[in-house]
Amino acid sequence: MTSRLSALSLVVLVAGSTCFAQETASLTDHYRAPADKLIQAALSDTEGYSRLEYLCYRIGSRLSGSPALERAIAWSMEQMKAAGLSNVRVIPTKVPHWVRGVESGRILAPLEKPLHMLGLGMSIGTAPGGITADAVAVSSFDELAKLGRDQVQGKIVVYNYVFTGYGSGRNYRQSGASRAAALGAVAALVRSATPLAMQTPHTGAMEYDESQPKIPTAAISPEDALMIGRLCAEGVPVKIHLEMGAQMLPDAESGDVIGEIPGSEHPEQVVVIGGHIDSWDVGQGAQDDGASIIACLQALALIHKLGLQPRRTLRVAFWVNEENGGRGAVAYREFVGDQIKNQVVALEMDGGAETPRGFGASVDQNSMDMLKQIGKLLEPVGAGEITGGGGGEDIMPLTRDGVVGMSERAAGTHYFDWHHSEADTLDKVNPEDFRKSVAALAVMSYVLADMPERLTAAGSGGRRGR
Amino acid sequence: MTSRLSALSLVVLVAGSTCFAQETASLTDHYRAPADKLIQAALSDTEGYSRLEYLCYRIGSRLSGSPALERAIAWSMEQMKAAGLSNVRVIPTKVPHWVRGVESGRILAPLEKPLHMLGLGMSIGTAPGGITADAVAVSSFDELAKLGRDQVQGKIVVYNYVFTGYGSGRNYRQSGASRAAALGAVAALVRSATPLAMQTPHTGAMEYDESQPKIPTAAISPEDALMIGRLCAEGVPVKIHLEMGAQMLPDAESGDVIGEIPGSEHPEQVVVIGGHIDSWDVGQGAQDDGASIIACLQALALIHKLGLQPRRTLRVAFWVNEENGGRGAVAYREFVGDQIKNQVVALEMDGGAETPRGFGASVDQNSMDMLKQIGKLLEPVGAGEITGGGGGEDIMPLTRDGVVGMSERAAGTHYFDWHHSEADTLDKVNPEDFRKSVAALAVMSYVLADMPERLTAAGSGGRRGR
Repeated sequence: MTSRLSALSLVVLVAGSTCFAQETASLTDHYRAPADKLIQAALSDTEGYSRLEYLCYRIGSRLSGSPALERAIAWSMEQMKAAGLSNVRVIPTKVPHWVRGVESGRILAPLEKPLHMLGLGMSIGTAPGGITADAVAVSSFDELAKLGRDQVQGKIVVYNYVFTGYGSGRNYRQSGASRAAALGAVAALVRSATPLAMQTPHTGAMEYDESQPKIPTAAISPEDALMIGRLCAEGVPVKIHLEMGAQMLPDAESGDVIGEIPGSEHPEQVVVIGGHIDSWDVGQGAQDDGASIIACLQALALIHKLGLQPRRTLRVAFWVNEENGGRGAVAYREFVGDQIKNQVVALEMDGGAETPRGFGASVDQNSMDMLKQIGKLLEPVGAGEITGGGGGEDIMPLTRDGVVGMSERAAGTHYFDWHHSEADTLDKVNPEDFRKSVAALAVMSYVLADMPERLTAAGSGGRRGR
Repeated sequence: MTSRLSALSLVVLVAGSTCFAQETASLTDHYRAPADKLIQAALSDTEGYSRLEYLCYRIGSRLSGSPALERAIAWSMEQMKAAGLSNVRVIPTKVPHWVRGVESGRILAPLEKPLHMLGLGMSIGTAPGGITADAVAVSSFDELAKLGRDQVQGKIVVYNYVFTGYGSGRNYRQSGASRAAALGAVAALVRSATPLAMQTPHTGAMEYDESQPKIPTAAISPEDALMIGRLCAEGVPVKIHLEMGAQMLPDAESGDVIGEIPGSEHPEQVVVIGGHIDSWDVGQGAQDDGASIIACLQALALIHKLGLQPRRTLRVAFWVNEENGGRGAVAYREFVGDQIKNQVVALEMDGGAETPRGFGASVDQNSMDMLKQIGKLLEPVGAGEITGGGGGEDIMPLTRDGVVGMSERAAGTHYFDWHHSEADTLDKVNPEDFRKSVAALAVMSYVLADMPERLTAAGSGGRRGR
C-alpha cells in the first residue's frame, strides 16, 4: 500500500483539502462511493444504447463531407444538451470530401466471377468504362521490387500479403498504390486488413506519393486475394476488370462537437474524453467509433444525472474526420490554443466497445500508481487493468504538446473482423459490454477530473502541480 | 473384446475364409497393414487438393442447369479416368434450371442503405422495376398468424427468427414465402441461416405451396434482419425496395458421374461413396460439397494407386442436383434398379471437410461393433468415432429401400458460416483436414468393400449374408 499511497498522501498534506483529511486515504477508498453509484447507474442504463441505436439505424454511416455526418453532428449537439451538458458547441473545421461513387470488379479469367472489392478512401477512380488488365500478385514490397517494371508495367498489382495483425496490412493499403505506380502498374488491389475471410472487403485510408502517377486502388476480400495469389503463383493468367467512380470534391464544412460539465473549483482545467464521430461510408460505424463516442457522452450524462460535479471541467469531444484527414484533431488543438497546459488529460476511445479491460496511459510511475488505485474501482466491471501506451489519432496533437494521453482498452476479440466494412453494425455492440464501458469511462473520467493531483505525462521530467 | 469379435468370428468359421484363419482376428488387426498404407498415402497426397483447387478456382460455382456444372461433369469424368477408375460414366437426368438474374435491394426508410440480400433458389423474380413496400417483421410463423391479413397485406414480410442452429431457419427459408403470401404479402425476406453475421447473405432452396400466390423471396444478412426487426418492434416504419430477375427455365440435361474399382470376388456387390457435384451459384461450393466429392474420388485414387482391389466393387458417385431438386439421387436409384440388394453400403459426405471425426451409420448393433473395429484404424487421423445416424439427401432413395446408409462426420465448427454463400471458397478447406478426410474415406470404404461380412441396416430385422 505504501508506494501506492505516498504521492497522494503528500499532495493531501500540501493541499490540505478537507476531502482528503486522512493521510492514508487512497483514491480507491476516497472515490468508492461515487464510483459504485456510477457503476450501478451505468449497468442499468438503457438511454446510452438507445442513443447508439439512433446513430447507427437512423443516421448510419457518416463519412467526412456526407450529409449524414452533418446530421450526426446536429443530432449530437441535441443529445449533449438533453444530457444536461454545458457549453455545447461545434468547433468548425473543413474536412476532405472523398466520394466513392459507383464501383465494381470482376475476375474475367481463368473463370468469370465477382471480385469482392471496396475502393480505398482517397483513391482516384478509373476512367469511365474501367480498367481491364492482367493481375500480378505479390506478398510484399520486396517481391514487387524484384518483379521490376518489366513484369509490373500495365498490370494490376495485387498485394496478397500474409495477414498477421492489423499492422501487417496497413502499409500496403496506405502506400501500395504509389509503390505499384512507380513500376508502371495501372491499379493496385490490397487484401483487406482483417483476420476473418467472409468475402467482406474492408476499406481504409490510402495516401498518394505525389511524385508518382496516381492509380486507382481498392481493398479486396481475403478470399479473392488468396485466389489471385495462388493462381498467379501457379502461372495461371488472371484477368481483372475494375471500375471505380471515386473522386475528391472540394473540402466540406464540418466540425468537432463538444459539451461539458464545468468544474466546480478549476473550470479552466479540462479532462477531455471522446472518440471520432465520422466513419467510413460502409456499415454504420458502430464499433468504429459510434459506440465509443456515445459511451463517452453517456458517462458524462450519468455523472450529471447523479449530481456529481468534479472540481475540474469534464468535457466530451466527438472529433471529426479521424478516418481520412485528422482535421478534427487539429481543429481541437487550435481551439485549445495557449490553454494547452490546462488540458489535464485527453482520453481517447477508438478500439471498439467489446468487453472493456481497462485503460492505457502514457504517464510516469507516480501517476501510474494513482491510475491503479482508480483501476481498483473498476474491478466490478472487469475494467481495472491499467497499462502503458495511452494514445490515439485524435489526441496526438495534444499529447505531442505534453498533455497526458490515455486510451480506453477493450478486448478487441472481433474488432478487426468488422472494422471499416459493411459489417460494422449495431448488432456487433453487446449492450452489456457497452454499459460496462460507460461505467468504466464514467468512473475514470470523474475521478481524473476531481482528484487533487494531476497525472504527469511519461518523460515530462516532473510532477505538474494541481 | 468378446462382444466385438463374436459376430465376426462366427462368420469366419462359417465362411472358412483363409484370410480370416484366426478366430480371434478383428477387423482392426486384419486391416491394419493396408489401412496404415492408405493413411500414409493420404497424408502425403497433394493431388487431391490440386483437384479441389481446379474445381473451385477454374470451374467455380456449379448450379444445376449452368454451363459450369456441365464443365464440372466432363472434368470429373476425366479425373476419374486419370485416377485409374473403371466404368466411368454419366447417369443422365434432367435437372431444374433456375437462374438468379440481376437482383438488388435497398432499405429506403428510415434511412437509405443497401439491403444485403441473395434471392432464394427457385424463387420467382419481381416484376420489372421491382417492389417497393413497407416491411413487417416477425420472429415466427405464430407471430405472422397473429398479425393477420390486415397487417400483412401489401407488405414485405421479414422473418427475423432467433437463430439457434441451421434447423431453426430452414422452415422460414423453405415455406416462408407461401405462408406470407397466404396473408397477402408481396415478398418475403428471411434471415440467413447462419450463426455468423458478416453482412453475407446465405441462399438455399425454397418451395412454393401451389395453393398460394407466388411471391419473390430472398435471404438477407443477419444484420439487416436484426435492424429491420428492431425498428419494426419500435414502430418505426421501414420501407424496402427489392428487385429480382430470377426465373425458371426449362429443365436441363445433366447427370451423376460415377467411377469404380471393380470387386475381385463380388463385382456385382457395390459400396458407393460420394457427395454432390452441384452447388449454389455463389462462392465455389468448396465445403458444400466440392471437398467431399474430391475427397471420395481421391480415396479411390489412392486405393487404386496402392494396388488394393477389394472383393466388392467400390464406386464413387458425384450426385447431381442435390441443392434444388434431388434429381441425381433419384436417377441413381433408377440406375441401380432391381440390383438394390447388391448396394452393400451407401456413404454420403455432405457436411464439409473440416477436421474429420468419424462416421455415422444406421446399422444394427452387430454392424456397429464391426464399424468400431474399423474406426480403430482411423484413430491416427482422429476420425475413429462411430455413431448412429448415417444418412443424407443423396442416398435417401437407397436407404429407404433398405440399403445401409452411412455419412462421413466432420467437426462442422464453421460449416454454416460459409454454407450457401459467397464465402464457401477453397481457402476454407484446410489441406491437412482434407487429407485426413481422404485417409478416413479410403480406409473405411476399402474395408467395407473387402471385409467378409456385410453391414446390416438398423431395423432390418436380421443379418444379410455375404
